[in-house]
Amino acid sequence: MDLNIFDRLESEVRGYVRSFPVVFSKAKGSLLFDEEGKQYIDLFAGAGTLNYGHNNDVLKQPLLDYVASDGVVHGLDMATSAKKAFLETFERVILKPRNMQYSMQFTGPTGTNAVEAALKLARKVKQRQNIVSFTHGFHGVSGGSLAMTANSKYRDAAGVSLANTAFIPYDGYFGPDVDTMSYFERMLEDRSSGLDAPAAVIVETVQGEGGVNVATQRWLKELQRLCRRHDMLLIIDDIQVGCGRTGTFFSFEAAGIEPDLITLSKSLSGFGLPMAMVLIKPELDIWKPGEHNGTFRGNNLAFVTAAKALETYWADDRFTQSIAGKATLLRDFLENMVHSHPAAGLSVRGRGLIQGLVSDIPGFSNKVAAQAFKHGVVIETSGANDEVLKFLPALTIEEVQLRQALDVLDRSVAEVVAAQPEQKQANARVIKFGGKAR
Amino acid sequence: MDLNIFDRLESEVRGYVRSFPVVFSKAKGSLLFDEEGKQYIDLFAGAGTLNYGHNNDVLKQPLLDYVASDGVVHGLDMATSAKKAFLETFERVILKPRNMQYSMQFTGPTGTNAVEAALKLARKVKQRQNIVSFTHGFHGVSGGSLAMTANSKYRDAAGVSLANTAFIPYDGYFGPDVDTMSYFERMLEDRSSGLDAPAAVIVETVQGEGGVNVATQRWLKELQRLCRRHDMLLIIDDIQVGCGRTGTFFSFEAAGIEPDLITLSKSLSGFGLPMAMVLIKPELDIWKPGEHNGTFRGNNLAFVTAAKALETYWADDRFTQSIAGKATLLRDFLENMVHSHPAAGLSVRGRGLIQGLVSDIPGFSNKVAAQAFKHGVVIETSGANDEVLKFLPALTIEEVQLRQALDVLDRSVAEVVAAQPEQKQANARVIKFGGKAR
Amino acid sequence: MDLNIFDRLESEVRGYVRSFPVVFSKAKGSLLFDEEGKQYIDLFAGAGTLNYGHNNDVLKQPLLDYVASDGVVHGLDMATSAKKAFLETFERVILKPRNMQYSMQFTGPTGTNAVEAALKLARKVKQRQNIVSFTHGFHGVSGGSLAMTANSKYRDAAGVSLANTAFIPYDGYFGPDVDTMSYFERMLEDRSSGLDAPAAVIVETVQGEGGVNVATQRWLKELQRLCRRHDMLLIIDDIQVGCGRTGTFFSFEAAGIEPDLITLSKSLSGFGLPMAMVLIKPELDIWKPGEHNGTFRGNNLAFVTAAKALETYWADDRFTQSIAGKATLLRDFLENMVHSHPAAGLSVRGRGLIQGLVSDIPGFSNKVAAQAFKHGVVIETSGANDEVLKFLPALTIEEVQLRQALDVLDRSVAEVVAAQPEQKQANARVIKFGGKAR
Amino acid sequence: MDLNIFDRLESEVRGYVRSFPVVFSKAKGSLLFDEEGKQYIDLFAGAGTLNYGHNNDVLKQPLLDYVASDGVVHGLDMATSAKKAFLETFERVILKPRNMQYSMQFTGPTGTNAVEAALKLARKVKQRQNIVSFTHGFHGVSGGSLAMTANSKYRDAAGVSLANTAFIPYDGYFGPDVDTMSYFERMLEDRSSGLDAPAAVIVETVQGEGGVNVATQRWLKELQRLCRRHDMLLIIDDIQVGCGRTGTFFSFEAAGIEPDLITLSKSLSGFGLPMAMVLIKPELDIWKPGEHNGTFRGNNLAFVTAAKALETYWADDRFTQSIAGKATLLRDFLENMVHSHPAAGLSVRGRGLIQGLVSDIPGFSNKVAAQAFKHGVVIETSGANDEVLKFLPALTIEEVQLRQALDVLDRSVAEVVAAQPEQKQANARVIKFGGKAR
Repeated sequence: MDLNIFDRLESEVRGYVRSFPVVFSKAKGSLLFDEEGKQYIDLFAGAGTLNYGHNNDVLKQPLLDYVASDGVVHGLDMATSAKKAFLETFERVILKPRNMQYSMQFTGPTGTNAVEAALKLARKVKQRQNIVSFTHGFHGVSGGSLAMTANSKYRDAAGVSLANTAFIPYDGYFGPDVDTMSYFERMLEDRSSGLDAPAAVIVETVQGEGGVNVATQRWLKELQRLCRRHDMLLIIDDIQVGCGRTGTFFSFEAAGIEPDLITLSKSLSGFGLPMAMVLIKPELDIWKPGEHNGTFRGNNLAFVTAAKALETYWADDRFTQSIAGKATLLRDFLENMVHSHPAAGLSVRGRGLIQGLVSDIPGFSNKVAAQAFKHGVVIETSGANDEVLKFLPALTIEEVQLRQALDVLDRSVAEVVAAQPEQKQANARVIKFGGKAR
Repeated sequence: MDLNIFDRLESEVRGYVRSFPVVFSKAKGSLLFDEEGKQYIDLFAGAGTLNYGHNNDVLKQPLLDYVASDGVVHGLDMATSAKKAFLETFERVILKPRNMQYSMQFTGPTGTNAVEAALKLARKVKQRQNIVSFTHGFHGVSGGSLAMTANSKYRDAAGVSLANTAFIPYDGYFGPDVDTMSYFERMLEDRSSGLDAPAAVIVETVQGEGGVNVATQRWLKELQRLCRRHDMLLIIDDIQVGCGRTGTFFSFEAAGIEPDLITLSKSLSGFGLPMAMVLIKPELDIWKPGEHNGTFRGNNLAFVTAAKALETYWADDRFTQSIAGKATLLRDFLENMVHSHPAAGLSVRGRGLIQGLVSDIPGFSNKVAAQAFKHGVVIETSGANDEVLKFLPALTIEEVQLRQALDVLDRSVAEVVAAQPEQKQANARVIKFGGKAR
Repeated sequence: MDLNIFDRLESEVRGYVRSFPVVFSKAKGSLLFDEEGKQYIDLFAGAGTLNYGHNNDVLKQPLLDYVASDGVVHGLDMATSAKKAFLETFERVILKPRNMQYSMQFTGPTGTNAVEAALKLARKVKQRQNIVSFTHGFHGVSGGSLAMTANSKYRDAAGVSLANTAFIPYDGYFGPDVDTMSYFERMLEDRSSGLDAPAAVIVETVQGEGGVNVATQRWLKELQRLCRRHDMLLIIDDIQVGCGRTGTFFSFEAAGIEPDLITLSKSLSGFGLPMAMVLIKPELDIWKPGEHNGTFRGNNLAFVTAAKALETYWADDRFTQSIAGKATLLRDFLENMVHSHPAAGLSVRGRGLIQGLVSDIPGFSNKVAAQAFKHGVVIETSGANDEVLKFLPALTIEEVQLRQALDVLDRSVAEVVAAQPEQKQANARVIKFGGKAR
Repeated sequence: MDLNIFDRLESEVRGYVRSFPVVFSKAKGSLLFDEEGKQYIDLFAGAGTLNYGHNNDVLKQPLLDYVASDGVVHGLDMATSAKKAFLETFERVILKPRNMQYSMQFTGPTGTNAVEAALKLARKVKQRQNIVSFTHGFHGVSGGSLAMTANSKYRDAAGVSLANTAFIPYDGYFGPDVDTMSYFERMLEDRSSGLDAPAAVIVETVQGEGGVNVATQRWLKELQRLCRRHDMLLIIDDIQVGCGRTGTFFSFEAAGIEPDLITLSKSLSGFGLPMAMVLIKPELDIWKPGEHNGTFRGNNLAFVTAAKALETYWADDRFTQSIAGKATLLRDFLENMVHSHPAAGLSVRGRGLIQGLVSDIPGFSNKVAAQAFKHGVVIETSGANDEVLKFLPALTIEEVQLRQALDVLDRSVAEVVAAQPEQKQANARVIKFGGKAR
């Protein structure tokens, strides 16, 4: 397919197009179609933005109706009927049943903007500058959130030194036997540890970009306890794994914690439209009017589809149950795969419908993803060195599609393993590193 | 109208809803309608986001068609037919006729994200950290761009100290007689001025948020000369006054300069949809793949409407001529207003269809805007102390609507002036301050 | 004694005078005398500045001669006979016998200034901003070195946020079973740990201010290995424990490492005169002339006494042997003390003639120090919470004086223990904390 | 003379030794003697450290007595008889007659350390991070003070970006017609200027290193007024031009201002010994004990000579009158020189016994200084490009020596001018630049 115009006119910064070098023209549910009509099953879901699939008809119709009827499309942060409906729906469907009380801040419609707002507000509330983030955390690449992002690929592009943050090892960073929370506690309690008193902690319950690292419920509870004891706000960045990705609307529901600030974006609109929000405990909502602004901070089209998505999928338990079913299917399949390919040294990790497959074979995940793409499946990698194959299907994917895609993956793994007959020795070395590393 | 749900559920950070306390439900061209059916003429245009008006039918139909036909809505930065069409159109309609060669970077779809990317790239290219911005400049409120924004209202909300920037007085900052560019030159040439060698300069040709301050062509040319001589990149932030606001597509065309980086957003999509772009001189496009990323950096719906807007309005000179006509009408009207209300001590400034009206009366612009809203016109203020009434109609506004709105403004000014019989003395003091200040 | 004039005229920042509220007028060897003639044995030695005792006659005579003969006292960094003699002596007595090759930089005559210079040079050499320091590290309180100092008491006084540093747990920080070096290695090898690539590591081999924490030779060797592997400079801050404090001239000699940069100050002049120096591996000496300057960077009086001290004490092994003997005496005495006061829950740590005594009793060390002062011994505490009683006698202290002072300490400990009959329960809780903390 | 050992063993950072490549061995009053017995008249005075000349006998004797009698040499910040005497003398001789009330903080004994303490305290008092400094200001090169130093030669060596400071043009920076204080006022009053609210302003009344730039009394008074109005502390850095350099003990006495913080060092000890002090208005002295510390913050030998110097020179008006006489002599001589060498395009500036001579001839001042050194006079240059020949004799210099030295300078100027017959054209260009620059 001719990608020449992209090469010629689009900046070198373009990324995914290099992994999936075709021009996509249509999409529906979990299927993508390129300009030549070839069909792909999508296990990437816009990096978690398409939890309800592409062009979901339930959401599409209200969107078409809204545009057709000349509803307000752009209104800065003025009040609109669409926003009103969203506010009402979010309170009724999400907050009240969970007994949660939060103010909603609509920031610029991207995840990083929500993170920027949360960081600012936390510092404003606590009048302290330092904020703790975690190894392998990813929170965006604009000036403020970039400081919280661990990956040097992004940090080194900052062009300035990134200050006012301290990194603490995430759950499991030194392997299952080391309790990183007690490390953090020690640093906090010791007034001579070099850790400046933090205004807040920002954390993902599952690190999506960082390599599908899962925090245990116990660790999250401990983290909340530490935050309370040391007067730090707890910010849950639920941008990638919120909106149902782990089975419940918020990813932290199982852990039973009550974050002070919550950032949401990606699948919030439900239709792939830019939208972002910070949930703020009311007593912390000390913003002055307009103090954090932005042109697109009320995306009315997104309000329309978002409200409809909440109504449709979250008004009762059926969706959660359906996700759980598919998560089991996915997990079982992957664990089977681990056993079927002993030479690949595979392991699985994840929660709900975000699962990662890791191998000892160098370059494994990129190779498998490339192979899968040839066979008609779109899947991405994550982790500091792309060492994790990340399974991120739409939550609405049909089981038959999911199985079909997984079969492709199984075959792709087999092909990659088959192509590496002499990697044994290299593996040995890598295992050692992998062992230490995780 | 009942705004209770907004008060109860939306964060205190909400702003414009406080100036325009109604719920808007429909919009068309330059008209807004609230839930009770009341109609408003819009002289605000989404702070420059709706240069082609609300729900412009020419753009709306392709949007509806695209959604209806299941075109790809969300595709991260993968290649899509919609993006391809935009790339092709932008090159053909905008770049080639102007003999411009630039790579296009689609950042997260907000202005501040485009600014963040431009700042990063400039620092990466020059391997220096400092970037010069100007008094009254506004470039966004995320971590990186906030450091470039002069207004303390936003800066004080950062929660951290904002570094790696130096502010230089904008054209006219000390009044018409002081050449601020020679000040800048002196600071650059003197290796002991305390000004660390800048990687770049970021500037608006007209400061929209800063109070409708207009840089002269000579000043801009001098700035480009300084940039070349002192090895700094020239970044034109054309987010608010690009896309035709001053009459030409780019605001800097009249000055005959060739920026190294250009940021565009707001009216780029033409339909009020979130979209942002950085134009990069090809030799500066040293990004590594994915170094600056973001979930929504390809908003395909915006590509569809943006391409259509370019075809419709910029393929020939007619739109430019039409803007010029309305700009003359607006400017003449405002200058008449100056003379009709001598007690208000009015003055006008601006370029094309961004014009500001300033008065010596304290609180003048907010009072007039409030009055105008009562009479059915939406208009905003700008400047460090909201001291400027900012006229920002859609470029497509019908003349009759524009005249109607201006009549309302004339009446509103009269009402405000009439209500201040005893301000004479206060004025005197304020004039002195105003005299020094500008 | 009347300290009224100090209270009235000296800033509130004064510190030690509060612990030792007398006016000292004379001093000789390890004895201090106050204005009323009372005599004190000095186990503090100017925090390590008086390794050869007060007013050591061997050094005093050349000093008197130099001043009397109108030798150059102040010469900025011009060449003087006194500096020449010091350079020659340091090379002959210290560097050559150890087969060391270093350039000498005479910075402003304080430890913090030497640290500032070392940090700058390391960043200049590696063109990176981040520098790693360790928990409980103390490197000074001026802007650059303060960022490397862990104690929040000093950090919080910075008034700005301290950037470009990352703190790594020192040897033994999590108890003897946790290898903190492998923690550091993991953070370095993982490009997504959030640890920006460091230009250098700055470390004390024994943390004097931090609580007499001793790094093992193995740990130091590993640290050097990591520095080499990850292209970081190794800076040994030998300001407090260099100049013989641990038995050898440099504190790192036993570990067999070769630092890239070494900072010396405190006892360098030998007479308590301000003097500081950075030793630089010649290939790293890329300073431009005058790039780091300061008025007092050549203290000629200090050159005179410093050269004499080197000749006198370091030309052969006798001094090292003498220190070893006294160190054994001190350590044995302290370990005896541990056993004689079981109720105090004592433990000892240290190396050579820097030894620390820790107790589970809250406020123990300050109480003992206060008691000892009443009995005529000057001794100080260290550690984040002053929890360590720090034994820091002059290296030249006479054995009889040392024993006499230690007897006083023994008695003071007994008095403090006797005064706390009801601390049992509190101890229990503190033990737990202390156990975790160390 | 053999400087080989310095080249071989001393760091490349050494500076003045390159301008004066001899080994000095003795010094007395205003004379320096090298190892070969050659005599030099000193017009540099240790960059303002030797206001009372080298080895001044009046100060030398008490110093010898103190050392001989085993007075306390090093006592950290404990109370000593020597400190007590200094406190008492400074209050009696300096503070009381001027009706000044200040607390004295003895920082590490270098100017930069005093500046670091003053900056910290100002930020602590005002709870703001930004501090204003001025173009061409020099305040030291350690982390905190370096940010306040304008010269890029020093700033570029920081290795990190220098934040929390803003530079404002010094008096006369744009020539005599531009009132830079109104520039500063405009930036302060405009909440959208980009100037973050400063905690303090730090300023020299005459910029010694910056090129002998003199602030007028009116400008200083205005500065104090601005500080009061905008709640900023006024820090006068009197390190180089305090202690009598301009005729009065403090350089700001003539301006009639009352700084909040004053830094002193250099000639404070009177004998070239390291000593530094911050004077603090008592109500601002909110330091906690030991918050800013340092090993050498009480240099007792310096206390001895400092107290004697105060008694000797400042107990009555005679010294001030004597300085005034020599200042007139110096200024007249220099102005004569201006007229005698019209081809050199000379001009003079300065106050009291700090005077600068500037020429249009490129490299003029360095060439004259080199020539003068050959003829037996030590004199230095200052300014961003060493463009100023700086006359800084001891205040105690004998008139006959001063005249002798000035004759040498006159001759040296003549030689340099004579050697540049073809510089006319180059001058023309330089005059233009120079004209703009000052």
